[in-house]
Amino acid sequence: MEERRQQLIGVALELFSSRSPDEVSIDEIATAAGISRPLVYHYFPGKLSLYEAALKRAAEDLADRFVEPREGPLGARLLRVMRRYFDFVDDHGPGFSALLRGGPGVGSSRTNTLIDGVRQAAYVQILTHLDVTNPPARLELVVRSWISLVESAALIWLEGRRIPREELETKLVHDFASLMTVSAAYDKEMAAILRRMVSDETIADDQGYASNFR
Amino acid sequence: MEERRQQLIGVALELFSSRSPDEVSIDEIATAAGISRPLVYHYFPGKLSLYEAALKRAAEDLADRFVEPREGPLGARLLRVMRRYFDFVDDHGPGFSALLRGGPGVGSSRTNTLIDGVRQAAYVQILTHLDVTNPPARLELVVRSWISLVESAALIWLEGRRIPREELETKLVHDFASLMTVSAAYDKEMAAILRRMVSDETIADDQGYASNFR
Repeated sequence: MEERRQQLIGVALELFSSRSPDEVSIDEIATAAGISRPLVYHYFPGKLSLYEAALKRAAEDLADRFVEPREGPLGARLLRVMRRYFDFVDDHGPGFSALLRGGPGVGSSRTNTLIDGVRQAAYVQILTHLDVTNPPARLELVVRSWISLVESAALIWLEGRRIPREELETKLVHDFASLMTVSAAYDKEMAAILRRMVSDETIADDQGYASNFR
Repeated sequence: MEERRQQLIGVALELFSSRSPDEVSIDEIATAAGISRPLVYHYFPGKLSLYEAALKRAAEDLADRFVEPREGPLGARLLRVMRRYFDFVDDHGPGFSALLRGGPGVGSSRTNTLIDGVRQAAYVQILTHLDVTNPPARLELVVRSWISLVESAALIWLEGRRIPREELETKLVHDFASLMTVSAAYDKEMAAILRRMVSDETIADDQGYASNFR
């Protein structure tokens, strides 16, 4: 039973990822899963509930992509995260756009909670890597607004993929460093965090960091 | 008739701005406008339609704040825009947050169209000031993702106003310059646009720009 339910979520996620959720019907999900329409309704009361289950799985997957071993230079860690993030964006393009641009169920408190959960997971991971437990307001602002920047860059990229994906991934890592640098110009605490961040990069340079990073 | 309708929209906008739209009732709007509840319904079929009318007025107001004479250094122009933008955010805080975080009517195609209209107006204004008519993909990415950065910074700022507003306004102008600079590192066309942007700043320095800008 649970296995069949999980399989159904997987099939639904694939369909919801490849087109806007509006355009996917329960009939189509049933056909793709090789089961009858009534059996779909046995597991889920309606399309919204199946959509939310698929979204929950996608959100967990996306949040996991921000988890990275605390080893090596910070820039290279963040670049690996960006690669995994854009793998996801690439695989789930239409669904990702529909969700973040406001599709069905958006504005419902449950979908918003899932989206916020991913953002929060990303935020917590970045703080962990920066070795900060009590983030000052300026750091919170930089990290959280950079996460928005990444989301919007992904949405714009999906519109026509007019920029090479690898360039965009690297650019977003550099954007993070540059937003940190601007903030450090206003505040000693931010300057100290930035110095620690950059000192890691210097050590890394001796380990062939430049070639990994570019 | 039209005057009464406009006055009603103004009253509704004030109420929708000061609290989450969920928390504002038609009765309260009627009382604040000094008219009867049936008369509100004479002008608007329901709360959503009144909310959308208020939102439309707010969107026009916000879009207008990006209009700036094409005179003087670009950084100072953008800083004046940020000041007006944050005046708006300051005045409409709870409504601004509720709308962009997903409140009632969000996900409806009409409210999304209004929000997108403001973003598009901001984008077009910035291109005009950069003297660019056919934006390359990388410029589109920087400008549009910076607009998202500003929105998210405003939302984060509203949570607790833990950073001085003036500092944040200046920081966002510097963020724009720094995101442009990162992008220029990847692309000759972006480097040329950046050089033109920066050359304006140099001229401006002689005109006492530094004191305006900080």
